[in-house]
Amino acid sequence: MSPPDLPATLNVFTDIQVEPALLERLRTGIEPHRLLVPSAGGTSVLEDAPIDAQLAEAHIALGQPAVAGVLGSKNLRWLQVSTASITRYDTPEFRSGVGEKQLVVTNSSPVYDQACAEHLLAFMLAQARQLPRALATVTPSGTDTWYQLRASCRLLRGQTVLIVGYGSIAEKLVGMLAPFAMRVRAVRREPRGTESVNVLTPDQIYPALATADHVINILPDSESTRDFFSTKEFAVMKHGATFYNIGRGTTVDQNALAQALQEGLLSAAWLDVTEPEPLPADHPLFALENCHITPHTGGGQKDDMRDMVEHFLENFARFLKGDELLSRVM
Amino acid sequence: MSPPDLPATLNVFTDIQVEPALLERLRTGIEPHRLLVPSAGGTSVLEDAPIDAQLAEAHIALGQPAVAGVLGSKNLRWLQVSTASITRYDTPEFRSGVGEKQLVVTNSSPVYDQACAEHLLAFMLAQARQLPRALATVTPSGTDTWYQLRASCRLLRGQTVLIVGYGSIAEKLVGMLAPFAMRVRAVRREPRGTESVNVLTPDQIYPALATADHVINILPDSESTRDFFSTKEFAVMKHGATFYNIGRGTTVDQNALAQALQEGLLSAAWLDVTEPEPLPADHPLFALENCHITPHTGGGQKDDMRDMVEHFLENFARFLKGDELLSRVM
Repeated sequence: MSPPDLPATLNVFTDIQVEPALLERLRTGIEPHRLLVPSAGGTSVLEDAPIDAQLAEAHIALGQPAVAGVLGSKNLRWLQVSTASITRYDTPEFRSGVGEKQLVVTNSSPVYDQACAEHLLAFMLAQARQLPRALATVTPSGTDTWYQLRASCRLLRGQTVLIVGYGSIAEKLVGMLAPFAMRVRAVRREPRGTESVNVLTPDQIYPALATADHVINILPDSESTRDFFSTKEFAVMKHGATFYNIGRGTTVDQNALAQALQEGLLSAAWLDVTEPEPLPADHPLFALENCHITPHTGGGQKDDMRDMVEHFLENFARFLKGDELLSRVM
Repeated sequence: MSPPDLPATLNVFTDIQVEPALLERLRTGIEPHRLLVPSAGGTSVLEDAPIDAQLAEAHIALGQPAVAGVLGSKNLRWLQVSTASITRYDTPEFRSGVGEKQLVVTNSSPVYDQACAEHLLAFMLAQARQLPRALATVTPSGTDTWYQLRASCRLLRGQTVLIVGYGSIAEKLVGMLAPFAMRVRAVRREPRGTESVNVLTPDQIYPALATADHVINILPDSESTRDFFSTKEFAVMKHGATFYNIGRGTTVDQNALAQALQEGLLSAAWLDVTEPEPLPADHPLFALENCHITPHTGGGQKDDMRDMVEHFLENFARFLKGDELLSRVM
């Protein structure tokens, strides 16, 4: 079966990089429709791909195909991006092209949101329990070192959290924070009224920044979010607050962050994303003991590629039936 | 006011080591009753104290007073231990002496249980997100190192947890795990039927050990718990399970643990307690990359001593009114 205005056998193009067994799962999962795989192999998530000739024949694409290839394809009806981020496609030109072609764009956010939220809570608890320092400390009880280490710990219970950028990661994190009886607020460009916490618009952020013990940045990269967190935002924050970033490195003025950490305005920063990735070896953030960086592994877990393929197959079944697609972003 | 069979002014002995302002808070909090403080200063939590002469005059004691001093005191009616652990007093001789004297013994577990539970969840999430390794890795996306790191992460969601030793820390942890939809079971010497999870007795532990992804040891030190986790227990555990200890170091055969970690039976161990503390520098556990040790800081946080004093004052008010005391252990 296919939607009425499409041929009986659809072409599904994918440039995802997965092990052969998963590609086979995808191939059999869409049968009798046809999987088209570029002979050159898949492409990086972070660079625009060369245009593969097979994209022109595809009705559906999964992965990170070249922007020009997507816009130039005649038959393409649906693109599922294999990541949560759609940075490459999030431009006025692409959106306008998508509108003209009536192309549906979905992303893979449900594949990564649980892992990202667990990564954030891992950061928050590692900070609260001072894990990096505690794991490096060998001391008997009762020494000054021991008392200072214990006194530098905080309970998450009862503290205040501000989440900037409210999507599916934030929604998961809010659920995980419920047992801690924290005061949680969020900032979202366009509040929908369906959020499970008190939501502010960006123009209301300053008073909220001033009272939060934890400021969590999940902003995507876009023209309006570049350097969103800069000198002014760090200066407004509560003294000793902790800053987290699992969105995109471009949303933070990293020199301003380094200065805020150096001056002790912030207790610490925990970053899963930077700009560029990785930072150059001589970047000031590397030299700061209170700056903790993981290499953009927040959304990863053993079965993420399997989950990504299954999420596509679930949407593929919906596409064939004419149902609304999950995780639609355009 | 005092209980009817006691003098109008009670003597409250304490050997707690806290800053002067907190001792003052304690002194004024019990007025017009009298605070007795040893001139030699407080004592360590982990060593038995010399007997202070003032203990003999005390009706109430707060801290870690010498066992012989407690048993030899004529007037003592209530001892509040300033820790959650009551190891020093948990002997047949002491229990028998307490029975004869009709001494009430309480502990300070509510002061530390939230911090300990947060420490445990910090350990679990640091393991799930591979934080020590991720924080030490500098790599761009798409390298083998990057894929391996992401693939070594696990979601807590849906995994299985076995908690061995079920008290107030376990109760808090179970609440924190609820959003992760994990399968949580616990082992308790004497199940009470009030636990919020499925509780097994120690003789039922082996099948449960064999299926748990996370085995969490919160056992206290006692004759029946020494080396509770030994070669057999580690051999029975699910391949690749993670072991946590926030109870007491004596409950684990540490050589057996080191061997299980070396052989890869376990993915990792996260220990807040060892025997002794700290371990000697040449101990095999220190040499293992998958053994992570914090120096018995699990219960600590900025305000723990304040909370400990306030918990005593809450119980003191109950004592004066003749109400049942909180956290009674004998």
